[in-house]
Amino acid sequence: MLSGTFISFEGPDGAGKTSALQAITAEIAPALGDRLTITREPGGNPISESIRSIILDRANTAMDYRTEALLYAAARRQHLAQTILPALAADKLVLCDRYVDSSVAYQGAGREIGEAAVAKMNEFATDGLLPELTIYFDVPAVVGLRRIQAHRDPTKVDRLDVEQTAFHDRVRAAYLKLQAAHPDRIKLIDATQDPATVVAQSLALIKQTAPAYF
Amino acid sequence: MLSGTFISFEGPDGAGKTSALQAITAEIAPALGDRLTITREPGGNPISESIRSIILDRANTAMDYRTEALLYAAARRQHLAQTILPALAADKLVLCDRYVDSSVAYQGAGREIGEAAVAKMNEFATDGLLPELTIYFDVPAVVGLRRIQAHRDPTKVDRLDVEQTAFHDRVRAAYLKLQAAHPDRIKLIDATQDPATVVAQSLALIKQTAPAYF
Repeated sequence: MLSGTFISFEGPDGAGKTSALQAITAEIAPALGDRLTITREPGGNPISESIRSIILDRANTAMDYRTEALLYAAARRQHLAQTILPALAADKLVLCDRYVDSSVAYQGAGREIGEAAVAKMNEFATDGLLPELTIYFDVPAVVGLRRIQAHRDPTKVDRLDVEQTAFHDRVRAAYLKLQAAHPDRIKLIDATQDPATVVAQSLALIKQTAPAYF
Repeated sequence: MLSGTFISFEGPDGAGKTSALQAITAEIAPALGDRLTITREPGGNPISESIRSIILDRANTAMDYRTEALLYAAARRQHLAQTILPALAADKLVLCDRYVDSSVAYQGAGREIGEAAVAKMNEFATDGLLPELTIYFDVPAVVGLRRIQAHRDPTKVDRLDVEQTAFHDRVRAAYLKLQAAHPDRIKLIDATQDPATVVAQSLALIKQTAPAYF
């Protein structure tokens, strides 16, 4: 029995979801204590980290896009098995930075494999488990990219960063399509607003979805 | 356009398919020359080999069975993209040691994930590409296991070898079910016969499927 509550954070690179998640954690962790699990894919387990290192290795230029999508799904499955499922079974509130929607947007639309095919393949990885709430941080591709370039250490450029704006436009369009298709699960937040507003709106959604924890 | 012919070799461990493939190669390679491609998963490309090493690492005892199935599919996809598809596009006869049916039998039935779920997930990996002919080397699980124990270097035991006979019984049952479901593609050879007979019967099937090469 999974008695906890699973909430994912989604959005294009530079949408600010990771910073928002940190601010939310700072606010709710003192009261929740060990009933709160904050995690992100690949999740720190040795198997998922090994898989991640194959994906991000800049030497792997020959990597086929479907191989990449399968590797993300494999890392996701292991993170689910080792971190998310045990936390949900132990009645925890799980806030996860990225989950299935990232693959649908990035591999399905960004890499143009097809969103439906990637979603279906990921059903195998998750055995159909979806979050009760997904907070989608929406930001125009060009704004997100500008933020990344401003904040990131320029010596830390991996293979995935070497992508064009067209790619990020497709990713955002896919997220918007997912939100429209699953309005009950996926809630959009305008991430061009000031960070405090974004955090407050996210917190309100979390409390509405998981009132038992507050 | 894929103008070549794709043939896979399948069967439980110890069925003798690898030895048979070597004997067949020795017989047909002189006449076929570079129109023949002999390969086996993971196929020697660096990406698939890295994936394989994660699967076989005995330290990875926490590996979830669905993670394992996704990793096999990822290695398969990369081998397909880098070896099989280019060879088929170049009009070659491709003989491949193991392909999708191995995952259906080993992960689907052996690991009990479910044969249909593993087959469907692998459709993503292969984009639906199946061999024109699959030669299935049938042997009772106990015979196959005895052969492995007799031939293999006992110091080279990997994680997958530490499995029970029940597992191998499920694998064989799954192969037989696949053969019954796809009688046009999958042809059964009784691999308890003497090796020369097995090789002769395999060669006859190959020549029947790909007469243009002989």
